[in-house]
Amino acid sequence: MSEKNAAIIIIGNEILSGKTTDVNTTFLTRELRGLGVRVQRVTVITDDIDDIAQTISAYLKAYDLVFSCGGIGPTHDDVTMAGIALGVNRPLVQDRVLLDYLKKNYGPVLNAAQLKMTEVPEGTELISVASLRVPVLRFKQLYIFPGIPELLVRKFNAIKERFREAPFYLVKLYIFLPENAIAAQMHEMLLQYPLLQLGSYPKLHKSDHKVVLTLESKEKPYLDEALQALLVLLPDDAVVRIER
Amino acid sequence: MSEKNAAIIIIGNEILSGKTTDVNTTFLTRELRGLGVRVQRVTVITDDIDDIAQTISAYLKAYDLVFSCGGIGPTHDDVTMAGIALGVNRPLVQDRVLLDYLKKNYGPVLNAAQLKMTEVPEGTELISVASLRVPVLRFKQLYIFPGIPELLVRKFNAIKERFREAPFYLVKLYIFLPENAIAAQMHEMLLQYPLLQLGSYPKLHKSDHKVVLTLESKEKPYLDEALQALLVLLPDDAVVRIER
Repeated sequence: MSEKNAAIIIIGNEILSGKTTDVNTTFLTRELRGLGVRVQRVTVITDDIDDIAQTISAYLKAYDLVFSCGGIGPTHDDVTMAGIALGVNRPLVQDRVLLDYLKKNYGPVLNAAQLKMTEVPEGTELISVASLRVPVLRFKQLYIFPGIPELLVRKFNAIKERFREAPFYLVKLYIFLPENAIAAQMHEMLLQYPLLQLGSYPKLHKSDHKVVLTLESKEKPYLDEALQALLVLLPDDAVVRIER
Repeated sequence: MSEKNAAIIIIGNEILSGKTTDVNTTFLTRELRGLGVRVQRVTVITDDIDDIAQTISAYLKAYDLVFSCGGIGPTHDDVTMAGIALGVNRPLVQDRVLLDYLKKNYGPVLNAAQLKMTEVPEGTELISVASLRVPVLRFKQLYIFPGIPELLVRKFNAIKERFREAPFYLVKLYIFLPENAIAAQMHEMLLQYPLLQLGSYPKLHKSDHKVVLTLESKEKPYLDEALQALLVLLPDDAVVRIER
């Protein structure tokens, strides 16, 4: 089954210095998973043109979908557009449609800071959606979002259906044994079901379980068969409960 | 002023699939900032040996300090040690001291899963601290932490003083004007004070301010001088309050 791989780039010194907690990663990873998209990497980088350029350039080569968050405002530290332009070796050009949008929002005469926000790498598409005040910007498979969580959520939700793939199916098993007591069975499991995504997450302070196992697949019959096989492999009464 | 650059590697499919929110990044970035260390990059990668190997290898070349979180338990998806070993081209070897630690915790006879946790890349140092049940593992400038936040916090706190550098100084200005009204002054500011770290963060729903400006430097006199210059540049009464 063909499947799109995605990467997320969070641009912002404020995250790296610990002054702001990144909430965009949690939102985007959950949403993309729900849409059936596999996120392969998340990277937080500085508000630095070279950093942005190198990361964008590398990720456009490596991933089917790339999402950037942050650095698209009017101030000196908003260098995402310049970084993308450098990374893909295209000039920054003023977009007339974006200019009209900004004039509608700010009035007919824009200052230098507002004009800066009309400049995009040549070849950028504007995705206009009725529910949005300003369009979402796309350059090839890179979708360029703002860093402000509320604005990002609004923009992502407006265009999310274009990313939908076949869904993932998930089963969670709550296990009262420690990880090392079931590690051999997990290993055996993956020999039998190599395509199963199998996760094992120890929990320190739960009274009724010590580990959560997650079984995932895009193929529901394969997942169901693997689950039955695992239940046979595990010691009697090891499973406290099953969630799907 | 020489200064150490750091990178953080979060290893875990559960973060990338949105099932778990990463809290280790917030903890580590805040702590490292407080210690005067500049975090340059955070990357979340899959529980995949090649992914880990390539990232570790690249980051050991690029950063003075590297912190990895996750993937050091006993199960099939804990492949951090194998990934590091591959990335730095060293064999995995059983560490006798680690073996003794684990026997003390689990009893004299270890199962295969427990024995797996005694294998480390050749050349790994064990940092034993009285307050810890098991030592922190270090390979060159890479510090290898568990993914479970409570264990990571305990281990990091036990050894954090070894990372301390000259501190950062920070001033926050709360501004009641929008970003585009002060962008020109910010630009001018950086021409006058190129070494200043200047951040501008719009706030959507605050009644008394629209932007928070952050001024940072490791040189306190430089920061104080820049602050005075900025206050002169900004329009009268633009600053609602100043926090240091």
